[in-house]
Amino acid sequence: MEYFNQILKKQCDRKNNSLCIGLDVDNEKLENRSIEYMKSYIFDIIDATITLCPIYKINFAFYERLGTKGFEILELISNHIGGNAIKIADAKRGDIGNSSKYYAEAILDNLNFDAITVSPYMGEDSISPFIENSSKGVFILCLTSNNGSKDFQSKIINGLELYKHVAKFSLKLNKNNNIGLVVGATKTDQMLDLKEVSGALPWLMPGVGFQGGDLGESIKIGSKNNSIAIINVSRGILNYKNGTIEDINEAANYYTKQIRQYL
Amino acid sequence: MEYFNQILKKQCDRKNNSLCIGLDVDNEKLENRSIEYMKSYIFDIIDATITLCPIYKINFAFYERLGTKGFEILELISNHIGGNAIKIADAKRGDIGNSSKYYAEAILDNLNFDAITVSPYMGEDSISPFIENSSKGVFILCLTSNNGSKDFQSKIINGLELYKHVAKFSLKLNKNNNIGLVVGATKTDQMLDLKEVSGALPWLMPGVGFQGGDLGESIKIGSKNNSIAIINVSRGILNYKNGTIEDINEAANYYTKQIRQYL
Repeated sequence: MEYFNQILKKQCDRKNNSLCIGLDVDNEKLENRSIEYMKSYIFDIIDATITLCPIYKINFAFYERLGTKGFEILELISNHIGGNAIKIADAKRGDIGNSSKYYAEAILDNLNFDAITVSPYMGEDSISPFIENSSKGVFILCLTSNNGSKDFQSKIINGLELYKHVAKFSLKLNKNNNIGLVVGATKTDQMLDLKEVSGALPWLMPGVGFQGGDLGESIKIGSKNNSIAIINVSRGILNYKNGTIEDINEAANYYTKQIRQYL
Repeated sequence: MEYFNQILKKQCDRKNNSLCIGLDVDNEKLENRSIEYMKSYIFDIIDATITLCPIYKINFAFYERLGTKGFEILELISNHIGGNAIKIADAKRGDIGNSSKYYAEAILDNLNFDAITVSPYMGEDSISPFIENSSKGVFILCLTSNNGSKDFQSKIINGLELYKHVAKFSLKLNKNNNIGLVVGATKTDQMLDLKEVSGALPWLMPGVGFQGGDLGESIKIGSKNNSIAIINVSRGILNYKNGTIEDINEAANYYTKQIRQYL
């Protein structure tokens, strides 16, 4: 049995890349809103990028709003990617143990995602069920890319920001080598300090592209301590130029080149 | 247009009760695991309790693990309850604004739940999309019933526990009178202090029954400041005696009597 963080590293090494494409497809913006069209559009995106892209992230909000059909698409996407890339369920779950266990079952077992994002607010027993299987990964929300991150995450507890406490807590919890952190690529000023307390935990970094995060700094700092900086780009790839499959492929190549400069 | 907290109060007044039955049905524990059976079992529970029960809470983990079928059941439950009780989606969502907007659409609009639980970790812009419609409610995780609540929620920031900061933040955000807090019924020692900073925000209180929370103290303290203490019981009702519909009805009556002593 391998540990998730090793599986992640292997996949990134194999493709010499740490790009993560966010498959956040807004079906209202598609020329054809049918579920069938959406599915084949997403399959086309995957097929056009999977030789270079080691990781895909799927934000569940975009699919939950489509009801049972959306849930079906999640199953199909997961099957379509199979073992050819890491599949992260960006679902931001977290509940009392009993319920978290069922979320883990739903997303990591039934839908067969490789990893999931979770919120730390409810503490250790809300996260434990997600990390039991060492081959599955958990990215704990730490310092998020949005404005609201200042409301609680940056508050000081015993001289240390809450997000650093979350990092230290995550590091301690990482007995199965399957935990990572969500760190917004927009948070350049805080990254270096945060890296000091987060050891070799990989960072999942959204915010490059549309939200204006700095790709170079994100990789340079995020991959310190021999860890991995996963660069997530969603709108910056899906909406590149006219958003055709050729445009998406071009954007994925562009970001890959950028990333390889720093690897 | 009414405000959610008024709609909630009206429903509780009408039934002279603040009981919330947690419809956390574990289909593995049913004698027949078919989705059809599960659906009719849940409908029977609702039919046997809705004349006295003003609020139902559905924890999404129990349904998500059943895939598309589980999602269908959520739709059916919501339709079946209709406007005869308040329907809380215990989904603990929270994401960047764009994604939270889609979760709100999925759960409050499409599935037509009246309220949703959300995590505060990502701050104001992660919650805003859920509170825009004043007739829909949001219960923000504040002081949860589980052990892990001590990991971050109880940490001190500027002399005040994080959960009290969450309460103050929620009170400030409550411009549409549609915000409440999740406060574990197991947290008797912290309730009085917390009530002081949470104004008239209603409290959704899980933890009575199986988790051992104190019903009397929860109502007495939770309903101070002319607010509402919603007493959630899940396993304590669904697993009462043999868990037959008659047993469930008896348990709902028992908890209702207990609650009415303090109202």
